[in-house]
Order: sequence, then structure tokens, then C-alpha cells
Amino acid sequence: MSDKIWNVYLSGEIHTDWREQIIAGCEAKGLKVRFSSAVTDHDASDMVGVNILGSEEDNFWRDRKASGINSIRTSTHIREADLVVVRFGPKYKQWNAAFDAGFAVASGVPIITLHDAEHDHPLKEVDEAAKATCRHPEQVVEILAYLMS
Amino acid sequence: MSDKIWNVYLSGEIHTDWREQIIAGCEAKGLKVRFSSAVTDHDASDMVGVNILGSEEDNFWRDRKASGINSIRTSTHIREADLVVVRFGPKYKQWNAAFDAGFAVASGVPIITLHDAEHDHPLKEVDEAAKATCRHPEQVVEILAYLMS
Amino acid sequence: MSDKIWNVYLSGEIHTDWREQIIAGCEAKGLKVRFSSAVTDHDASDMVGVNILGSEEDNFWRDRKASGINSIRTSTHIREADLVVVRFGPKYKQWNAAFDAGFAVASGVPIITLHDAEHDHPLKEVDEAAKATCRHPEQVVEILAYLMS
Amino acid sequence: MSDKIWNVYLSGEIHTDWREQIIAGCEAKGLKVRFSSAVTDHDASDMVGVNILGSEEDNFWRDRKASGINSIRTSTHIREADLVVVRFGPKYKQWNAAFDAGFAVASGVPIITLHDAEHDHPLKEVDEAAKATCRHPEQVVEILAYLMS
Amino acid sequence: MSDKIWNVYLSGEIHTDWREQIIAGCEAKGLKVRFSSAVTDHDASDMVGVNILGSEEDNFWRDRKASGINSIRTSTHIREADLVVVRFGPKYKQWNAAFDAGFAVASGVPIITLHDAEHDHPLKEVDEAAKATCRHPEQVVEILAYLMS
Amino acid sequence: MSDKIWNVYLSGEIHTDWREQIIAGCEAKGLKVRFSSAVTDHDASDMVGVNILGSEEDNFWRDRKASGINSIRTSTHIREADLVVVRFGPKYKQWNAAFDAGFAVASGVPIITLHDAEHDHPLKEVDEAAKATCRHPEQVVEILAYLMS
Amino acid sequence: MSDKIWNVYLSGEIHTDWREQIIAGCEAKGLKVRFSSAVTDHDASDMVGVNILGSEEDNFWRDRKASGINSIRTSTHIREADLVVVRFGPKYKQWNAAFDAGFAVASGVPIITLHDAEHDHPLKEVDEAAKATCRHPEQVVEILAYLMS
Amino acid sequence: MSDKIWNVYLSGEIHTDWREQIIAGCEAKGLKVRFSSAVTDHDASDMVGVNILGSEEDNFWRDRKASGINSIRTSTHIREADLVVVRFGPKYKQWNAAFDAGFAVASGVPIITLHDAEHDHPLKEVDEAAKATCRHPEQVVEILAYLMS
Repeated sequence: MSDKIWNVYLSGEIHTDWREQIIAGCEAKGLKVRFSSAVTDHDASDMVGVNILGSEEDNFWRDRKASGINSIRTSTHIREADLVVVRFGPKYKQWNAAFDAGFAVASGVPIITLHDAEHDHPLKEVDEAAKATCRHPEQVVEILAYLMS
Repeated sequence: MSDKIWNVYLSGEIHTDWREQIIAGCEAKGLKVRFSSAVTDHDASDMVGVNILGSEEDNFWRDRKASGINSIRTSTHIREADLVVVRFGPKYKQWNAAFDAGFAVASGVPIITLHDAEHDHPLKEVDEAAKATCRHPEQVVEILAYLMS
Repeated sequence: MSDKIWNVYLSGEIHTDWREQIIAGCEAKGLKVRFSSAVTDHDASDMVGVNILGSEEDNFWRDRKASGINSIRTSTHIREADLVVVRFGPKYKQWNAAFDAGFAVASGVPIITLHDAEHDHPLKEVDEAAKATCRHPEQVVEILAYLMS
Repeated sequence: MSDKIWNVYLSGEIHTDWREQIIAGCEAKGLKVRFSSAVTDHDASDMVGVNILGSEEDNFWRDRKASGINSIRTSTHIREADLVVVRFGPKYKQWNAAFDAGFAVASGVPIITLHDAEHDHPLKEVDEAAKATCRHPEQVVEILAYLMS
Repeated sequence: MSDKIWNVYLSGEIHTDWREQIIAGCEAKGLKVRFSSAVTDHDASDMVGVNILGSEEDNFWRDRKASGINSIRTSTHIREADLVVVRFGPKYKQWNAAFDAGFAVASGVPIITLHDAEHDHPLKEVDEAAKATCRHPEQVVEILAYLMS
Repeated sequence: MSDKIWNVYLSGEIHTDWREQIIAGCEAKGLKVRFSSAVTDHDASDMVGVNILGSEEDNFWRDRKASGINSIRTSTHIREADLVVVRFGPKYKQWNAAFDAGFAVASGVPIITLHDAEHDHPLKEVDEAAKATCRHPEQVVEILAYLMS
Repeated sequence: MSDKIWNVYLSGEIHTDWREQIIAGCEAKGLKVRFSSAVTDHDASDMVGVNILGSEEDNFWRDRKASGINSIRTSTHIREADLVVVRFGPKYKQWNAAFDAGFAVASGVPIITLHDAEHDHPLKEVDEAAKATCRHPEQVVEILAYLMS
Repeated sequence: MSDKIWNVYLSGEIHTDWREQIIAGCEAKGLKVRFSSAVTDHDASDMVGVNILGSEEDNFWRDRKASGINSIRTSTHIREADLVVVRFGPKYKQWNAAFDAGFAVASGVPIITLHDAEHDHPLKEVDEAAKATCRHPEQVVEILAYLMS
């Protein structure tokens, strides 16, 4: 009934193609979705601070410079999103994904989590704050199709 | 000058005595601080849902029942806090700590992180959103003493 | 004077054609209105959780899965609405309609109620929070025409 | 750890003694809780408008006068509450209870529902927005004891 | 049930003793109310700006200096109030009372109006935004007694 | 530099053509402004409640029905406005204009007042909350031209 | 991935061409940015109040009239901005730039500062609240290009 | 009438005893005021970051560490204040004072400025956002006495 274009932010894992699967799935269904995300090129993201603002000897401040710039992008897109999908993969700490989840929830933006069952227990607080927990990207596409039907 | 009593929420790791160190340190300095935190008894926290509301066969829903009750406590205390200290220890996923950090920041509550240097890189986004990154609980105590001087 | 396109969310009863009457009435008057609502196909709505996310033995969790997904749609559209019309029909509990009304009012979105006089007394709190109480869908259309004149 | 006094609003059914059970249960456990609720004397509540402000011929406006005054009390206490318990009994429409639930959720106040399993399906949207669904008042007391432990 | 102390702001007419009547009426009933209001000494209020900050030749700026200081008091008390009573008397423009009413409503603070029937029509927008319209100060006292019962 | 289209709400006096003068003045300057206002046809506005929702014997409730519908329009446009111009003319109580002013200010929307010097003193609180006080409609046009330059 | 058009407010120094450099740099890269700023014609800005609203003998009130009008423009654009760039040059007090920075941060809008190293110490509080500190306008362009990549 | 204890934050110049004058003046009048401010010991404030968290070679990061800790104190007290007094003295850049002013205004906290006439022009935007501009600390005391009368 509504012709609303949904804004969906894709947060989390950058080592698999789950974003591309969701975007392609929505395109295949003709869904009007505007996707956004952090910069997913790992090196570009890590080095953006020193690349633009000048080098740092201490990695702590090198990371700070990058994270400052990245947080402009992240916080702006999350606050403008109608929905945030947070993907947790099998590897790495991924604390920024959990941080995004908490940030979205406190900003009044609904979240969907996307992860395997093996992480159910450590993610129980994040899943409780989520509106759905998916195992596969295509489930996210199906939810979007339902929301926009 | 001010006689404000500060509300400080202690989030994260439950396997070491960092909370006790901070509380004892503040008491030793005579600081007027009201501390709060999640329930730190691991089993009590994990089983609270089924203990009170009835058993579940599926662990996903057992965790959901617990997390719902725990989130009443967590979100209430964080939103009432003047400061949230988020501790990341060497073990476990600790996604709930990062979730708390994002929730606090988006709620306008300042955070301090407390972790070792080895986690600086994976915590760079959380540290960027923090007002200070401490390595030892006594540094948190010193900051509180300064804030309340 | 203003050429504002109004966003109107239609909440409540799904067993009569009151939505269609309002939409057709607005179209007949050439009013620029964007309507939205929950999914009104009863079975699709009830089963969406298990259809997409997998089956549940316990109906309580089957309903939870559906309600989580439905609430993304409902809360998003209500918060974006300029006006929420809440219809109470003669049958069923319709607690979700009253929940939507309370949610809209606390979100600062004006509501109009639509119901027969026999429900005036049990709906007195909801009607008090409403800007108008209508008996017939065409009255809603007339109000919209006036608002947009 | 925290000595926070919790504000708990008790919404819904006025024909059984569930409020008294919760209050007595908390007292027995020595919990520091401040309870509030609407006026639960049915006649006093229904007639407060005309009793104070003057009679009305039309029952619609008689109810409006009462509901206006009652909503001052209701909205003030709900917004100040740390937790709202919403009770649905076996009888009556109870739309005001569902309205309170939606109002609390959109105001950022966590809710607990209290009802029998027979109402699970019509209350699925309200239960999804709740942090716990209880069957008996003593479960509410146990949750409060846990939150304040 | 609740022992909440209500904060009540008394706005409007300063030429009759309606404030004193409400305060005395509440005291007589033993109600725990904290009253606040603008400075009701007409000359002190009008001249506060130039008295403290220095004289002005132009009355427009003399009034601006006073209104700046008065608005600190007014806006602070209204935003802290649980209820604002707005009194319109038979004389003068009293635009500041209507301004206070609009300010309170947009700040989420409920209002009660207090005026004679002859002003019903020009006050229809303010009365619509009010939770009750009283004709006599004792009705305000009765409402407060009911709210705090 | 910016090509922002400004939303301007015109509140107050309906018995002179000040709105038309501002609109024509902006058109003459080619300014991209979207104007909105209440319904300025006095009878249509006063009778809209009973015209659509059915007659009332008591004028108090006749006015309530109208004011409820009018407030949907008024509050929606004011909250969406970038600027509210509030006109006070020489006649009538015009409390709704002062109410709109207070509502806008508390909603974070800047206001400009438009009135003769003879009303400076009774409007001192409203003028203090305003960003400018104009005497003639063309001054409002000049301000808009400056804001959009 | 996202085709979001960014709104960027340029605050501060008006005596060099840093705004033009940023705008030209973004155009050269084909970035979809909507820029806004205060009126940068110094005399037009200082005299706008008396030019439109009539002369003042006292410079304090002449400045007040100008600042009122300018603040409509400033506060509106800052609150609508996705990013505020605050430039501090080598001369003048530039307190309005620091005021804009504090206003933006409390409004939840991220800021970037742009100034030479010699001002690092007096700007340490502003820089701490900023997401990046640039030395040259082209660094701002590079950050915008990264944010919109 | 009200017995409200006012929270007043004193921002700005740390090289004269204006804070002590205001505090002593309020005590002499028996006013119930809770004062707060930044740490006014210049060295303690500048070095707090490296003193507690460890040394830095680069002064930019030394200042960052201090400013992070100081901003916890500053932002917490300003947001809790009923009134912020911002003092600009004859020396130094004092950008943090102007930043505090903008932060307070956007947080809805009224401000009073305190400075000599020679700074009227560069402070015109800050003064416009202020409710009063004082030349002497005793004027601040008189305003507080009036607000609490």
C-alpha cells in the first residue's frame, strides 16, 4: 500500500559477501531499498585517518584518527536508517558490530541480527533487542519484501 | 565545589574483581558514588528467565527470557547513569559490553573503557566514542576523584 | 495553501473494508495522501515469523516471531505518520489497535478514532487522547479534506 | 549493589486483588518500591469529571471529563515509572490497559505483561513489546526482587 | 498509593487571589504539592531588567531585559512541573498566559485552564489542549486531591 | 549558497490580508517558500467539528470538536515549520496566536512576531521569545529574503 | 553504495576563501553535497537588524537585532546538517564559531575543526568534541569524498 | 513560593575570583544554590589526562586526554544545570566558554553572559542566545535572588 523507500544500514562482518547477497536479492524482487554501510575495504578504513590527516607513531592514535572519521559515516547512516541489519561472522571480535547494535536500539532504530546458532548464547542480549534473528541473508530479503508489501 | 553524587554503571567482564577494586578505591577516597551493574552471578543471570517464568526446551528462548528481564535492569541503570565504565577482559566474546557502550553513547551518557593494549585495535570504534581509555581500575578511581573534586 | 502530502497510518480492524473506503474517498476528492498500515492479510501476518525464520512448536514463540517482524513495519510507519486513524470494530479483543493508539500519542502523532457509539465507554481513555471520534469512514475523508484545504 | 528505589506503575484490571498481591509480596521481601496506578475505585474514576466539573447530559462528554482528569494521573505516573506492569484479566475490553502499554513503550519505559495463556494470541503484539510475560503476581515480585538484588 | 509530591505551576492572572485560594485549599486537605509561579508583584516583574541590569530609554528594550530574566524562571518551573494551571481573568490581554499554555503542552506537561464561560469561545484552542476546564479555584483543589488520592 | 526551501507557518489574525502580502512579496522576489496556516475562513473553522462529526447543543463541546480537528493541522504544520510568523492585530483576544507562539518555541521552532507598538508591553514575553519583531508584512519578506540569500 | 546527499554547514572565519576551496574541491570530485553557512558579507550581516527593522542608538541593541535574524538561519541550518565544519582563523575572537560548535555537538551533529597547530591548545575542548581536526580545506574535501564513497 | 534549589554552572574565565564573588553573594543572601564548574586549577586541568592515563609526546594528544576527562565533568554539570553563567574576561581565546554556551543553549539550559562592554560586538551571537548580559558578578547574584524569591 505504502510506496515508502526503506533505508537499511548493513553493519558488521566485512569478510564475506552477505551485503551483496542482500542487495542482489532485493534487486531481484524489485524492492525500493536504499542501503548504506561503513566503508568495507579493510585497509582503506583502518588507514583513513593517517592517510588524510597525517601519520601517527602510536597505533592507538592512528586508530583514533580513523575511527573519528568512520564514526561520522556510521552514526549518520544508522540514525537515518529505518532498519539496521547486524551481521556477526565466525571470526574476530566484532565489537564494533555490537556497538552499532546498541547505538541503533538506543536511537530508536529497529535491528535484525544475522548469525549462526553457535553464537546464540554470547549474542543473547543483542538478539533480545532485535526484532528478528536470521541465519541466512535471503531471510533478511524475505523480511524486507514482507515489510514493503 | 559541587556535592553531586555520581551514578556510575559498571558494564562488562564478570570473571575478575575489577568492580570491587573500583568500589573499594572510591570508598577509600570517601567519594560519593552510587554504583550499579548487571547481575554478575553468571548462573543466576543466565537462568533467571526460566527460573521465574518457567522452563524452555529451546536454549534460544531460555536465553530470551533471561535477556528480557536483564535488559530492564541494564537499560534503566545505564540511562540513569552519569558515567558508564565498560570493561573488556581477555576472554569471551563480550558482545553485551560493546552493546552497552553503544547504547550509552546514543543515550547521551559518557563512557570510559577499561582494557589492555592488546585489544586496542578491535576496540578502536568503542574507544573513539569513549572519554578515556584506562588500563587499570585505579585509573578509573582517579578519574572519579578528579570529576568530583 | 500548503501542498503537503499527508502520511496517514490506518490501524485496527482487518475484517471490513473501512481502509478501502477511506482510500477511495480520498482518491475521489483528489487528496494527496500516502496511506500505510500493517499487513492486513490475517494468515500472512500471523505466520510470517515461522514462514521466514523457521517453525516453532510453542504458539507463544510462533507469535513472537511474527510480532517482531510486524512491529518493525508498524512502529516505523506510525512514527512517520502525520495522523493515525484507529478503527475498533464490533468483534475481537483488538488490543493491538489500542496499543498502536498509545504508541502514537506518546510519539507525538495525533490520532482519530473510528468506532460505533456502543464502544464509547470502554474507549473513553483512547477517545480522550484522540483529536476526533468518527462513526463512519467518510467522516475521516472529510477531515482529511479539511486538513489539506 | 545499587540502592535505587524503583517506581512501578500497575496498569489494567481493577476487579481482582493482583495489585495488593504484588505490593504485599514486595513488602514481605523488604523491597524498596514506589507503586502508583490509576484510581481503582470504578465509580469514583468514571464520575470524577462530572463530580468536580459539573454534570453532562451526554455520556460521551461525561466520560471525556473523567478521562481528561484521569489521563493527568496516568501519563504522569507512567512517564516517571521505571517499569509498568500491565494486567489483562478475563473480562471486559481493557483497551485502556493496552493503550497504557503502547504509551509506556513509546515513552521508553519497559513493560511486563501479566495474563493467562488464553489471551496469548490477541496480546501477541503487546507481549512482543514486553520484557517478560507473567502468569501470576508473585512472578512479578520475583522479577522485582531480582532487578533490585 | 503513591506518595509523589506534585509540582504545580500557576500561570496567568495576577490581580485576584486565585493562587492563594488554591494553595490554602491544598493545605487544608494536607496535600503534598510544591507550587511555583512567575513573580506576581507587577512592578517588580516589569522593572526587574532595568533595576538589575541598568536603565533603558526605549520601553521595548526595558521590557526585553525584564522578560529575559522572567523567562528563566518561567521556562524552568514549567518544564519541571507535573501540571500547569492557566488562569484567564476578565481583564487585560494575558497573552503570556496563553504562551505559557502552548509552551507547557509542547513540553509534554499537562495543563488545566481556569476561566469563566464568557471566554470559552476565544479560549477554545487552549481548552482543547487542556485536560480540564475549571470555573473556580476549589475545582482545581479537588482535582489535585483526586490525582494524589 | 543553500537551495533549501523554507517552511513558514503563518499564525494569528485572520481579518486582514497580511498573509497574502507576505506570500505575494515572496513570490515577487522569487523566494522558494512553502507557506502553511490554519484554515482562515472563520465560519468553516468554527463549525468544522459539528459539520463533520454531528451537532452539539452545548457550544463548549461544539468548539471542542472544531478545535480538535484544527489542532491536527496546526500542530503538524508548526512542528514541520522552519519559522513561525505570529501576527497580533488590533482586535479580539487572539489567545490561539499566543498559544501557537509558546508551542513553537517549546518545539524548537524560531518565531517572528508581527504587531504594532501599542501591543509591545502585553506581548513582551512573546517578543522576548521571538527572533525579530516586525511592524509590517514587508519586513517579514525582507527577513526571508535575507535568510535565503 | 548509498546515494545520500550530505548537508554540510560551514561555520567560522569569513576573511579567507576556505569555503570556496571546499566547495570547489567537492565539485571537482563530483560529490553530492549541499552546503550552507551564515551570511558571510560582514556588513550585510552586522547591519541586517537595523536595515530591516529600524535603527538603534545603542550598538548593543543594533547587534541584538542582527543576531536574532542571523540565529534563525544559523540554528536552522546547523540542526539540518549532517556535518558542521568549524574554521578558526588567525585573527579575531571568533566566539560565534565556538558557540556554533557547542550548539552542533549538543544537537547531535558531528563536527570537524579546521585550524592551524598554533591554536591547538586553546581549542583543545572543541577539538575533543570534533571527529577530526584538519589543517587545510582539501583535507575536508578528502574526508567528504571518503564519507560518500 | 517555590523552595526549589537551583543548580548553577559557572563557565569561563579562571584567572579572577568572579566565581567566589557569586558564591559568597548568594550565601550572604541565604539563597539555596548548588554551584558547579570545571576544575579551575589550570595545571591540574591541563595535565589530568597524562597524570592519570600516562604521558604523551605530542601535545595534541596530551590535550586530548585531558579534554576527554574534563568533558565528562563539563557536559554532565551543564545538562543538569538550571542556569549557566558564562564569563568572558579580557584575556585569552576562551573558546571553551563560547563552546559551553552553545552546548547549554542547544541542551535547553538558559544562559547568562558576564563580560565588559568592550566585548559586546564579538559576543553578539552569544548574548542574543542569553537571557541576560551582566557586567558585574553581583548582578548575577541579584538575578538569582529574584529567580528564587
